This record gives sequence, C-alpha cells and structure tokens, in this order.
Amino acid sequence: MATRKIAVLVGSLRKESYTRKLARSLMLAAPPTLELDIVDISQLPLYNQDDETDTPPATWAEFRSRIREADGVLFCTPEYNRSLPGVLKNAIDVGSRPYGQAAWTGKPCAVVSNSPGALGGFGANHALRQCLVFLNMPCMQSPEAYIGGVGSKFDGDQLTDEGLKTFLQQFMECFATWVERHAD
Amino acid sequence: MATRKIAVLVGSLRKESYTRKLARSLMLAAPPTLELDIVDISQLPLYNQDDETDTPPATWAEFRSRIREADGVLFCTPEYNRSLPGVLKNAIDVGSRPYGQAAWTGKPCAVVSNSPGALGGFGANHALRQCLVFLNMPCMQSPEAYIGGVGSKFDGDQLTDEGLKTFLQQFMECFATWVERHAD
Amino acid sequence: MATRKIAVLVGSLRKESYTRKLARSLMLAAPPTLELDIVDISQLPLYNQDDETDTPPATWAEFRSRIREADGVLFCTPEYNRSLPGVLKNAIDVGSRPYGQAAWTGKPCAVVSNSPGALGGFGANHALRQCLVFLNMPCMQSPEAYIGGVGSKFDGDQLTDEGLKTFLQQFMECFATWVERHAD
Amino acid sequence: MATRKIAVLVGSLRKESYTRKLARSLMLAAPPTLELDIVDISQLPLYNQDDETDTPPATWAEFRSRIREADGVLFCTPEYNRSLPGVLKNAIDVGSRPYGQAAWTGKPCAVVSNSPGALGGFGANHALRQCLVFLNMPCMQSPEAYIGGVGSKFDGDQLTDEGLKTFLQQFMECFATWVERHAD
Repeated sequence: MATRKIAVLVGSLRKESYTRKLARSLMLAAPPTLELDIVDISQLPLYNQDDETDTPPATWAEFRSRIREADGVLFCTPEYNRSLPGVLKNAIDVGSRPYGQAAWTGKPCAVVSNSPGALGGFGANHALRQCLVFLNMPCMQSPEAYIGGVGSKFDGDQLTDEGLKTFLQQFMECFATWVERHAD
Repeated sequence: MATRKIAVLVGSLRKESYTRKLARSLMLAAPPTLELDIVDISQLPLYNQDDETDTPPATWAEFRSRIREADGVLFCTPEYNRSLPGVLKNAIDVGSRPYGQAAWTGKPCAVVSNSPGALGGFGANHALRQCLVFLNMPCMQSPEAYIGGVGSKFDGDQLTDEGLKTFLQQFMECFATWVERHAD
Repeated sequence: MATRKIAVLVGSLRKESYTRKLARSLMLAAPPTLELDIVDISQLPLYNQDDETDTPPATWAEFRSRIREADGVLFCTPEYNRSLPGVLKNAIDVGSRPYGQAAWTGKPCAVVSNSPGALGGFGANHALRQCLVFLNMPCMQSPEAYIGGVGSKFDGDQLTDEGLKTFLQQFMECFATWVERHAD
Repeated sequence: MATRKIAVLVGSLRKESYTRKLARSLMLAAPPTLELDIVDISQLPLYNQDDETDTPPATWAEFRSRIREADGVLFCTPEYNRSLPGVLKNAIDVGSRPYGQAAWTGKPCAVVSNSPGALGGFGANHALRQCLVFLNMPCMQSPEAYIGGVGSKFDGDQLTDEGLKTFLQQFMECFATWVERHAD
C-alpha cells in the first residue's frame, strides 16, 4: 500500500479534552501506511457567505487547502446536546464552500464519537454521518466507534484501557483498508 | 393572553439571507401577544470549555441572558450540508453551558427551515429538533415548516407569496398557543 | 387531576422481551391518575394501502379505535439495527391512515428505549421521535430514557434495580404532568 | 466488469405504487453489468425472535437466501410519517437475523426515496441510511436521490420525465461503479 495522508479533526477545543486524547491514541494505533495530522479548527471564523470574497479569511483558505491535500479524513467528536459540536460543524461548513468547490468531495472517512457517560456520543456520530452524504465522502460503516465512559480509559494522556487499545488498532486497520479502496 | 417574549434565532449570518427575511416575515405575521426579537449569534466565539472561567466572553454572557429572559424561542434556519449550520449549533452550545445551567431549559420553541431548492431544509429542521430533546425545550410538532424555493417568495425584503404569507400567520398563531400552553 | 387513559406500545413481540418487562414496570411505577393498557401490535398485517377499502383488516380498525380512545401514548422500544423495529413502525403506519384520519393526532406521548448493551437504544429513541413530528404528537422531551444494560436490571419479571425503579417513577410522574398539560 | 446481481427492495406494497414504478425505471436505466431483481417483502411475517427456531417461517429463510445471493442492494422507498415504512424496516430486521448472521453484511447499496410532495422522502432516505451503518453496508453517498412530485413523472407505468430519466441513468451508472469498487 502507498502512504495515505489523513486529516484528523477534533471536535472539542478544550486543551485537555478526551476527544483530543482519543485522537492521539488513534494516531498511535494506526498502521504505518497512514500519515495522520490533526488539522486545527479552532481559528476558523463562523461561516458567513458575505466573507466569501476574493480574499476570504486566511484561516479558511488554509483549512481548505489542508483538507484538499488529504487522502482521507478521520473525525473524532464529542457530543454536544445530542449532536455534533457547532465548532466541528462550522469546520465542515467552511470546508464545503464556496459552492461547488467543497474540499471534502470524495475523501474516504471514518467517525469516532465519545462521551463521559454511557451513550458514547451516538447522537453526534450519526448527525455527523448525515452531513457526509451530501459531501460525497464514502464513510466507513463498521466497526462503529461509540466510546462511552471515556474518562476512565486514560491516565493523564496515556490510554490505559487495553480493550480499547486493541479496538482502536482494529479500527485503524479497517480504516486503512477503507481509504485504500477509495483511493483514485 | 399575556404578552410573551420570543427570542428569534437566525441560522445564517449573511446580511441578505432568505432565512433572515423569513424571520422578519414571521415576526410581522405574529399575533400581538408575541413580542419577538432577533438575538444576534454572529459574535459568539466558538465554544471552548477552557473559556468557561469566572469571566467568560462577554458575548456569551450577554447571549445567555437574552435567552434566559425569553419565554420562548423561534429557530429559523437554512440547511448547510444536510444539517443545521455550525453557526447556529455553536449558539445552541454556548447557551447550553455551563453544565447544569443551560439557558434554554423548558422554553417552548418552534423550528422553521428553508432552502433555495425543493427540500425545504428538512435535514436542518430535524437535526435541530434532536438537540431540543436534551435541552428540554417543548417543541411545536405541527404545523411543520419546510419552506422550499425560498428565493422566489420575496421581492427584495418583501414577502410576496400570498400562500406563504397565510401559512406563516397560521404558524405563528399555533406557536402563540403552544407558548401559552407551556408558560409557567 | 382527572384519570387519563394511556395506550402503551411495546416494540418487541418476543414474549420474554425486556422491553415488555420494562413496559410493565413503567405501568406499575405510574401515578394513579394514569390508566395504562398495553395495546397489542403483533396481529397487524403489514400496511398496504390497497387493503384500505371499506372493510380494512379488522385488526387495523380495532387498533385505530384503541389509539383513538387513549388520552396519551407511551412508546417502549428496543433498537433494531440502529432504529425502531419494523414491527413498531408498522403499527405507527397503520394508526396514521387513512390519510387525514390519523388516530395519533394530538396525543401527548413519551418514549422509552432500551438495549442489552450500553447505548440504551438511542437510535430507536430518536428515529421514533422523528415520526411524532408529522403525527403532531407533543412528545415529552425530558427526562430522556435510554435504558442500557437492561438484562441486568431484572430478576425474572421483577425489576430489581432500585436506581432504575426510582427513575421510572420520576419519569411517569413527569409524563402524567405532560399528558395533563396537553389534555383538551 | 463482471455481472453483478442486485436485489431491489420496494418499500411500498401497493400494486400501483410510484415507488414500484420508480424501481422498474431504475432497473431499465441500469447498465448491462447489473442484473436487477425485485425481492418481494410483502409476505414476511412481522419479526418476532420467538419464531427464530430451527424452522423459522419459510418466507424469512427464502428472503435471507435471496439477499445472501445478491452482490448489492438497491433500496427504493416512499416516506411514511417522516421515516421509512414499517414494511421495509421489517424486511431489514428479518434479513439482519439470527444475531451474527445478517444477510446484509458487506453488501454495497444505494437509496432512492420519493414522495408525491416536494420533499422527496428525505426523512425516509436518511432514516434508512442510519440502519445501514450497523449492517455494515457500504452506502453510495452521491448522487443523492430524493424524487419529489413523483406523481407527475409517469404516464401509467411509463416514466415520461426526460430529466428524471437521465438522472436515473447517471445514478445507476454510479451505482454500478460503487458495487464494483466494493466487490470482493
């Protein structure tokens, strides 16, 4: 397999967020054919079509170009109010414009959701998947990843739950296969 | 009926957005017992729990207090990528925190979605409704409002489609009844 | 409060299903102002509009009349394939016809989902809620009820989990208030 | 390309249903590498796990074997109450059992929804997609197919709308490519 570049999006801006720790654990668990980088979404001004001029915000242009360079996308998200965070949706919206020039088009992707409680971010996971249809991003269906009780899986930044470690490894192997299958 | 204060949220930031025009038309169509005001969401920094200090961003505090003062909420939203705009979701997230102190709790509400195409923003409408469950906002079920082909309904800022005008009036009358039923 | 008749729908046909046990526990936990009865959905032929003649299937007519007599509806459902069971959706479809004569219209309702695993039937819960919008059934938003790990909560038919028992009682008290608020 | 067998599921049982007409039009519009057959779902008893004995209903066994033989699945569905019909969900449930032996696993698929009104069955389309995640069926994201105003597109059984005819052809070509990409 060739090396594939994967843009990792983290749906929480909190520095010590479990979503970020989970994202880093996923990056460590990935097979060597995947080259993963977190693409920052914290500096993207709220999407406003009026700003879509010849000189849109520099962070928008930078973000779009980072997504365009990627061969695939890994979404890591918490659940806010039974859906994906506005922060993450804003990044999706920014990357989807200008109309007809979405940076996302055709990129294979996968979704990992998590929550401190038991539900594992199911609502965020599927609300996000609904967006991917329109964006024409082939989304890995299985294994599904709803990581509940995330607070007990880490010691500091270190993933200590062995079962989860194994699962993340399997997940990333499946994702590598999925990306490969959808490479041009 | 007593006068009820309604916070109107507009899911698009574009100045000339049809969502904003629609919101203004809904305000004009409302019975006199409703006092409607658009609450601005364009200046809310992306939600980051690390900023939830003793001095959170002033716009967050201001927004939360505007929502708290309201007796009900009217959501007007376009559809971005088959879901609600990140801009609007960010406002919902900001208003839902700090944890346990959501400004939204118990406020009766209604959802109006729209789109230039035929589908009327169905995806945004229902993605938004999913959030309202957790926020414990009693949401008017019917009439549903999926306003398709919105571009042809206005002449400048003026709503010219008579059928839609009548519908908005009925919608707002039902909403007034809904708000009244859920007033303390 | 007056006595209110509540139709209880059980989304699983299995005799020993946990959904049925949960439904019975909810019935026991209800305040005396609610009179709850399980309405059978196992004998409803698959909905086919061609059978909507002057003499539709007797079980359809009987089911519709049972729903019409009720003042409210309590949906108890497992999750099948991340959504509500076809069995339950079929009952909803049968009760929604003939067109313009839905038996469900205006009935206040609540949703309880459950699963053997951790996720508590979130997918079924919200997929069902989406239907209730069109049916114009005011749906209690909170408390939400996603009962995970349901297999460990019972000893035979007996609910033994004290925390869950208390929750079901609170849930049914809130539901009684909700029904009352939406009574004509 | 090799010939691929596609199971076509029609979500409405009505003989003259537009969904069935649309399904037949899709079959006619398909490239010759696809061999499409409608698999009947009208005779499947409502799913009840108690009937999952050594001798389950013959129609269940037959249906599961028809799905297993297929290389892919095309779902054609109307919208009932803002979701997929119970009839179609029941077929999905039947095909997903016994637990661990789902007939659907891994089959590439696509979804076409339709409605007499403008919304094109959006709610059914995406409610169905949510099920496909758990079933691990790679689902074609784009083109999306929400066929609104379906009643005006046919003269008898004949599809007369030229724009729709062209769209269905493109849709089926994309689907053939999608199936090929996911063939073992």
